[in-house]
Amino acid sequence: MISFEINATDGKARTAVIHTDRGDIHTPIFMPVGTRGSVKGVAPDRLKAAGAEVILGNTYHLFLRPGHELVKNHYGTLHNFINWDRPILTDSGGFQVFSLGPLRKITEEGVNFRSHIDGSKQFISPEISIEIQEALGSDIMMAFDECPALPCTDEYMIKSMDRTTRWAQRSLDARKGNNALFGIFQGGVSIEMRKKHLKDIVDIGFDGYAIGGLSVGEKKEDMYTIIKEVAHLMPKDKPRYLMGVGTPLDILTAISEGIDMFDCVMPTRNARNGSLFTSTGLINIKRKEFVTDTKPLDANCSCYTCQNFSRGYLSHLFRNKELLSPILNSIHNIHYYMNLVKTARKAIESGTLNDLKDEIAAIYER
Amino acid sequence: MISFEINATDGKARTAVIHTDRGDIHTPIFMPVGTRGSVKGVAPDRLKAAGAEVILGNTYHLFLRPGHELVKNHYGTLHNFINWDRPILTDSGGFQVFSLGPLRKITEEGVNFRSHIDGSKQFISPEISIEIQEALGSDIMMAFDECPALPCTDEYMIKSMDRTTRWAQRSLDARKGNNALFGIFQGGVSIEMRKKHLKDIVDIGFDGYAIGGLSVGEKKEDMYTIIKEVAHLMPKDKPRYLMGVGTPLDILTAISEGIDMFDCVMPTRNARNGSLFTSTGLINIKRKEFVTDTKPLDANCSCYTCQNFSRGYLSHLFRNKELLSPILNSIHNIHYYMNLVKTARKAIESGTLNDLKDEIAAIYER
Repeated sequence: MISFEINATDGKARTAVIHTDRGDIHTPIFMPVGTRGSVKGVAPDRLKAAGAEVILGNTYHLFLRPGHELVKNHYGTLHNFINWDRPILTDSGGFQVFSLGPLRKITEEGVNFRSHIDGSKQFISPEISIEIQEALGSDIMMAFDECPALPCTDEYMIKSMDRTTRWAQRSLDARKGNNALFGIFQGGVSIEMRKKHLKDIVDIGFDGYAIGGLSVGEKKEDMYTIIKEVAHLMPKDKPRYLMGVGTPLDILTAISEGIDMFDCVMPTRNARNGSLFTSTGLINIKRKEFVTDTKPLDANCSCYTCQNFSRGYLSHLFRNKELLSPILNSIHNIHYYMNLVKTARKAIESGTLNDLKDEIAAIYER
Repeated sequence: MISFEINATDGKARTAVIHTDRGDIHTPIFMPVGTRGSVKGVAPDRLKAAGAEVILGNTYHLFLRPGHELVKNHYGTLHNFINWDRPILTDSGGFQVFSLGPLRKITEEGVNFRSHIDGSKQFISPEISIEIQEALGSDIMMAFDECPALPCTDEYMIKSMDRTTRWAQRSLDARKGNNALFGIFQGGVSIEMRKKHLKDIVDIGFDGYAIGGLSVGEKKEDMYTIIKEVAHLMPKDKPRYLMGVGTPLDILTAISEGIDMFDCVMPTRNARNGSLFTSTGLINIKRKEFVTDTKPLDANCSCYTCQNFSRGYLSHLFRNKELLSPILNSIHNIHYYMNLVKTARKAIESGTLNDLKDEIAAIYER
């Protein structure tokens, strides 16, 4: 179980601590994504050095490989398997399953789908999702939900939300242990539907709440509108999690609207593509100008990469497809994101979050 | 410049220290290969943790990218470019150039070849090789040599060795700084030719000597015969380097014949293929039996990988092509090799090298 303690506020934003059995999570927090039990290219000691307090594991991927039963039977928990002794949040598998498109079929009972790996027939229901997440020893589990592809008709959205509500109740009923469980609400880019579904999910009662179904292809202004209109309506006394978001400015914007938790593959995926976040903006290390640039990637960054290597060396590694390239790039981008939320926490404490948001907006909207 | 100090002997084997301006190298030593300015997958801090005292850089690759002039003009030395403050040995480029086969043409002056990257026309001579190595700030440079493809006629071998002798003299004459320079002798698998060429090269006078042209496809027994017949004839008061070798047993065998220095891509290349060296033998992490194996890769190993992860997790990472797989595997294999030579040094000091060699032979010849 978790407890949630708010420390400081700045407008709608707040800093808080989520106390877990595996240590405290200081919010607002960014959670690096360890899809298949590994944050791509970043070993646990590097993650800790970057300030990571909690990472995300993907239920869908871990269910298929290596399988939650292997993890439970041989290691007890995912933490032991991957050597991460801090908290882990697991998603419900819903998002990945629905991403399979034609490979899946939804019924009231759950979702039939074919594995993207070997085409084998699989089935996940709310009960199975919770069983998997409990087997993984997740510190924060997510209720099984449908994330409808946008755009969709109001009729389908309502049908989908109502089913997700029933699945949320079934997820809660299925919980056997004392792992925390968050509810997810949907509603696409409709403020009214979002409000309705939030209420339905809150009525069930969870340890925290998450906005699902954003950053899935809708217009950025629509996402921002939803965050602005609904984040502050989420229960104040519980953690608020915006799933799968986003850019530095997305995160600062959502923090200012009262969101506490974030996850996104952007820092690691961008890193592998040579796209690096710095205090002066996004740098594409592929660009020719960096070949002879002896400066550190970010003079203001204390990460292992910036403290030890030049842009020119990172450019050389990238151009030669050296294995060290995604490693050093990922270390930096993860550090950037962890530092971003740390800076946001400090700004909230000193009442200067808006200044920080403006600063990030100026850097990343150039 | 370097100096060489022998400390202990055990039969023909010896421990020694190569004093360099960038720190001491304790021999027998293994040098991880940083082909293009990076030991694949292993950041410098991990290399140091593994006990690496000197790494190898490839002149051919660094000449083509990023170019020795970029390194010299912008960083002063390769060390600064790649953030490695310990000694670096650079090969002469000869081996890689001759590996190009039909893409190169040898003349007395040097070698014309086409870049494997973009097909551009390039030329390396002994003088240019030394210029490149000096520009890189190499602590130990290698004389430019031809490594004849085996089998070759006695006639060609003699012609080639004589040219390599002239190139060795030209390499020495071309040296402008005080970087150490080693001579390389060839001779294929003929004891007589090896002895002749060793004498020719020694007559010129270098800071150390290297056996070139072994481990290039000849029979293992032929390689062992050459090592046995010629290693002890190399000057006692200078470092002896066996280039591009080899397996743990190759290294122990050569150490027992008096060789001091080794380099090989085997630990990192094998690591990427899931082939891992352990105190009980070679493990192929691909094998199904490791999927549920919760034991560390090597219970006797103190590396980051073995101290923190199980065989089952390494198997999972490998099977899912996770970026962390080659990283953790490479950390381990490099550590294994560094530990192997460290153990050999201790064995020489205690007069038990033969026991160690027998032990390694028993493990790796099973």
